[in-house]
Amino acid sequence: MKLILAVVQDKDVTRLQDALSEAKFKTTKLASSGGFLKEGNTTLMIGCDDDHVDQALDLIRDNCSRREQMVAPISPMGGNADSYIPKPVKVEVGGATVFVLPVDAFHHF
Amino acid sequence: MKLILAVVQDKDVTRLQDALSEAKFKTTKLASSGGFLKEGNTTLMIGCDDDHVDQALDLIRDNCSRREQMVAPISPMGGNADSYIPKPVKVEVGGATVFVLPVDAFHHF
Amino acid sequence: MKLILAVVQDKDVTRLQDALSEAKFKTTKLASSGGFLKEGNTTLMIGCDDDHVDQALDLIRDNCSRREQMVAPISPMGGNADSYIPKPVKVEVGGATVFVLPVDAFHHF
Ligand code: NI
Ligand code: NI
Ligand code: NI
Repeated sequence: MKLILAVVQDKDVTRLQDALSEAKFKTTKLASSGGFLKEGNTTLMIGCDDDHVDQALDLIRDNCSRREQMVAPISPMGGNADSYIPKPVKVEVGGATVFVLPVDAFHHF
Repeated sequence: MKLILAVVQDKDVTRLQDALSEAKFKTTKLASSGGFLKEGNTTLMIGCDDDHVDQALDLIRDNCSRREQMVAPISPMGGNADSYIPKPVKVEVGGATVFVLPVDAFHHF
Repeated sequence: MKLILAVVQDKDVTRLQDALSEAKFKTTKLASSGGFLKEGNTTLMIGCDDDHVDQALDLIRDNCSRREQMVAPISPMGGNADSYIPKPVKVEVGGATVFVLPVDAFHHF
């Protein structure tokens, strides 16, 4: 038995939880923020048997890896909005920091 | 030394914390949600000596076990409220998912 | 690799995070409350190599130790406020409860 603590961005957490749930993993979300990743992250606790750790890690990697995304920039305040043509910019999103912890005992009451 | 992480329903957490506190256990509440249990859960961190783990587990089992409860259903919207006789229904409440983690070192500053 | 879980008072957490960040530690904040310390605490998760645990513990001790502080008491409601001279009182603040957990594996995606 292992306890996986995965710190992931808020924007990825629903997709990850869906993927984990489909694969029969049970997860609990802890409200978290800052530090390992930019603001707006969530820590997932995932309890699983030793032989399912790799599968869980694959799902986290598949759904949360750091990646680049094109986003429309916020249009500037004031000025002539009509003549403003927003140019998409590349930003880095996602990313996951994952700890796999040993578990001495697991109970479900 | 062990660190017990107990995911329990919000409705059970105050009673459990009172029971743990009376038995001299120190606890910290982490805001959590979803997954192991239905929405509205709390994760308690309980640090304790190895020889008190069983006592803590007993208190969690006693206060949080999954159980059936009779609840009055929400009365239906509209219709003739006077003639509506609510029939209590059985629902499953409670439940606890518990991880006992080994601790390399404990400090109190 | 270790995972340090440090429960500290809200009033100390920003200073501690700054000190840890300056020393290149990565931290994640978990919303927490009650128990180990008085209400209003935060749990920091700090992942670090075995040989940096002592440095992290030093920073926690330096920034969060239990200490006495003189505070101006709330002035009493009603009465003659003009003639009331508040006398500072000593209160205990700070404190940290720290668990160092073994980590089986660490991943960053
Ligand atoms: Ni299997
Ligand atoms: Ni004893
Ligand atoms: Ni070093």
